[in-house]
Amino acid sequence: MMRGGRLIALLTDFGLQDHFVGVMKGVIAGIAPAARVVDVCHEVQPQELDQARFLLRASRPWFPKGTIFVCVVDPGVGTERRALCVEAGGQVFIGPDNGLFTEPLAEKGAKARAITNPQAMLPDVSRTFHGRDVFAPAAAHIAAGLRPSQLGKLVRDPVRLPPLDPVRTGRRFWTGKVMHIDRFGNLITNLPAQEFLPPAVRGIQASAGFARISRVADAYAAAPDGELFLIAGSCGTVEISMKQASAAKKLGVAIGAPVEIEVW
Amino acid sequence: MMRGGRLIALLTDFGLQDHFVGVMKGVIAGIAPAARVVDVCHEVQPQELDQARFLLRASRPWFPKGTIFVCVVDPGVGTERRALCVEAGGQVFIGPDNGLFTEPLAEKGAKARAITNPQAMLPDVSRTFHGRDVFAPAAAHIAAGLRPSQLGKLVRDPVRLPPLDPVRTGRRFWTGKVMHIDRFGNLITNLPAQEFLPPAVRGIQASAGFARISRVADAYAAAPDGELFLIAGSCGTVEISMKQASAAKKLGVAIGAPVEIEVW
Amino acid sequence: MMRGGRLIALLTDFGLQDHFVGVMKGVIAGIAPAARVVDVCHEVQPQELDQARFLLRASRPWFPKGTIFVCVVDPGVGTERRALCVEAGGQVFIGPDNGLFTEPLAEKGAKARAITNPQAMLPDVSRTFHGRDVFAPAAAHIAAGLRPSQLGKLVRDPVRLPPLDPVRTGRRFWTGKVMHIDRFGNLITNLPAQEFLPPAVRGIQASAGFARISRVADAYAAAPDGELFLIAGSCGTVEISMKQASAAKKLGVAIGAPVEIEVW
Repeated sequence: MMRGGRLIALLTDFGLQDHFVGVMKGVIAGIAPAARVVDVCHEVQPQELDQARFLLRASRPWFPKGTIFVCVVDPGVGTERRALCVEAGGQVFIGPDNGLFTEPLAEKGAKARAITNPQAMLPDVSRTFHGRDVFAPAAAHIAAGLRPSQLGKLVRDPVRLPPLDPVRTGRRFWTGKVMHIDRFGNLITNLPAQEFLPPAVRGIQASAGFARISRVADAYAAAPDGELFLIAGSCGTVEISMKQASAAKKLGVAIGAPVEIEVW
Repeated sequence: MMRGGRLIALLTDFGLQDHFVGVMKGVIAGIAPAARVVDVCHEVQPQELDQARFLLRASRPWFPKGTIFVCVVDPGVGTERRALCVEAGGQVFIGPDNGLFTEPLAEKGAKARAITNPQAMLPDVSRTFHGRDVFAPAAAHIAAGLRPSQLGKLVRDPVRLPPLDPVRTGRRFWTGKVMHIDRFGNLITNLPAQEFLPPAVRGIQASAGFARISRVADAYAAAPDGELFLIAGSCGTVEISMKQASAAKKLGVAIGAPVEIEVW
Repeated sequence: MMRGGRLIALLTDFGLQDHFVGVMKGVIAGIAPAARVVDVCHEVQPQELDQARFLLRASRPWFPKGTIFVCVVDPGVGTERRALCVEAGGQVFIGPDNGLFTEPLAEKGAKARAITNPQAMLPDVSRTFHGRDVFAPAAAHIAAGLRPSQLGKLVRDPVRLPPLDPVRTGRRFWTGKVMHIDRFGNLITNLPAQEFLPPAVRGIQASAGFARISRVADAYAAAPDGELFLIAGSCGTVEISMKQASAAKKLGVAIGAPVEIEVW
C-alpha cells in the first residue's frame, strides 16, 4: 500500500469551467478519504480519444506504481458501451471501453475487466455522467482496498484502436500527426524522437501546414529567433517549435493535422 | 471527524488565472494542515450569484457529510455585508451574506451565523479579498476543530434570493432559465427533469434563442447528428444538447437566457 | 516538520491545458507520498519573469513557514543556466537561476545553492522539461527529508534582476507598471498602496492607456458604476479597477504597460 493513501490520477475532456471534476473528487473523498487525487489534465479536446491516449502514454511513466488512472473521454456514455478496469504495468486504468486504453492493453500481462459490480458504483447511475457515477466510485473503492477482481469479470475483447504510431509511406518517408498542442504553441507529434532525429538519422525534413522545417535544436533557447525548428520534446517525440513564439499560430495547424517527414 | 482530515470544498468566481485560489489554499494549509481541499469550480461568471447557487446545489449531494464549502462570489466585499456560516444537512457553508446560501438556508434545521470572531480571521482583514482574510481562515479553523458556534452569533435574517425554480406562465407553460453552459456547449436549465421530461409528461416543446426543440434523448449518443435535443442532465435538470457539437454555439445563447417550455 | 506532510507550492507558466503540471505532481507523489501540493498559479504569461516574481512576492506571505515553492518560468531550459535552491524567510524556493528569485535572495540570511546532486533529480534529465526532471524531484526530496545542503554547493552569484519597484521621474512623479491583470480585469500595479494612496498622500492622479484616474475607492462596490478608480488591492499595491466591469478592457492595456502617477 502506498504511504499517505493510494494515488488517483484524473485525465478527462471535462475542462475546468464546470463542476464535473470537483464532483468526481467529492465522490472519491466520500468513499476513500485517504486517497490522494491528482489532475493529469482535463483539457483534452472534447471527444478526442487519440489525444487522450497520447497524453496518458506521455504521463504514465511519471506516476508511481499503484496509481489508479481515471480517464474519461466518453462520447458513448449512457449507451451499451462497457465500463472497463485495466491492470497493466503495476498501474490501474478505469474508464469507458472505447479504445482509450489501447496502449496499456497492449502490454504484457495486461488484464481487462468489465465493471459490473453495483457495489462499486453509486446507487443511482445516470446516463450522462459515468465519471461521477461509475468511474470515480470504482477507482475510490480500489483505493479503499477493493480488489480489481471484485469489480467484474475478465473480458477478452476490450475495444482497441489503431496504434498511435506514424505510418511509413516510402523508404525515407513517414506521415505522423499532431497529437497535442501545448500552451507555448509547440506542436507535439507522434514521431518518436529517438528514431527520427539526429543522431538516429543524418537529417530530417518535416512538412506541416505550408512550412518545411529541417533545422533541429537541442534546447528551445538554442534556436534562432523567429524560425521554426524540430526538437526532442518531453513526451519523447518530435516537436515543431519556435523560440518564445507559437509554432501553432505560425503554422495555423490544429490537433490531428498530418506531419510528413523525410529522413536520410 | 473525517478520516484523513476534514474536507474543504471551494466554489468561487476567481478563475484560475490568478493566485487568489492558491493563496486561499496557503492560508488553509497554515491553519489546518490536515484538511483536504477540493476545487468544486472557480469559473462561475464574475458576480453571477444565481449560477453559483445552481452549481452549489448541483454539487453538494456528491460531497460527504462534514464537508465545509467555501463559496466566494462577492461583489460587496469590503462593504457592510456580513460574513456567514450556515450549517445545513450535515454540511457547512462559509461565504458572504448575499444570498449565495439561499438553498441550504431553506433546509429544515438550517442555522446561520455571522462570522465575527476575530480569532477565526487573519489578523489584518483587507477590504478587497475576504476569501483569503475571512472565509478561508474560518473554514480552516472549523476543519481544525473550532465549533461553528464559536464563529459568531446566530442571525435570523440572512439574505435570501428568489428561488431558482422555473416560473409557471400558463396551464401548460413554464419559463425556465439557462443556469450554466458546460464545456461541451450543453445548456443546463433549472427545469427539473423529473417533472418536465417523459415519462412525467407525454411531450415537451422548448424554445431557446430562435430554436424550438421537442426531441428528447436518453443519452448524448442516442440522438441524430446535427440536431438539438433535450436530455435529463447530470444536474437533475433539462439540458439542451447536440451530439458532439455545442448547442450553445448553435443557439447563440448565454447564461441567464430564458427557456420557454410547453408540456402536455 | 509540518503536520500532514510538507507543503509544496507550484508557480509556473505551464497553464493547465497540458499534462505538464500533472506530471510534476506524479513525480512528487512518487518521491514524497506524504507531501501536500498546492497550485499557486500556472497562468503566468509564457516567459514573463517579472509577472512570476510579482505573483510569488504577493503569494508567499500567505503560505506557512517550511513551504517549498517550485517556480518554473524557464526560457533557458536545456542551456547552461543553473538550477537553484534558495532558502529565505523560513521557506524554500526551487527553480531556474534566471532572476525569478531576486526578491527572496534580497532577504537577510538568504542562501542560494546550485542543484547539482544527481540523486535529487530523475535518472534521465531531458533538455526541455526541468520542472519534471530537476525541480519537482528536488522539492520532493526536500519534502521527504533531504537537507538543502545536500542538493549542491552555495553560490555567490545567483542571477538578480532589477527591482520590481516603480521609478521616480520627478519630485511628485513616479512610473509604475501593470504587473498582473486579474480575472475581473483589475490592473494590478507595482505601486505600493501604503505609499501612494491616501492617507499617505493627499491626492493621486494616474495615467494608463488614454485615461487619467484620480478617484480612489475603499471597496470595489463603493465606486460609482462605469467609472475607473484606484484602490488598495489585495497584493498590497494600487489597482486600477471598475465596478463590475473590466478596467483592462476599458483601457486596452496589457501586462507590462506603464502607469504614470503624480501625487500631492
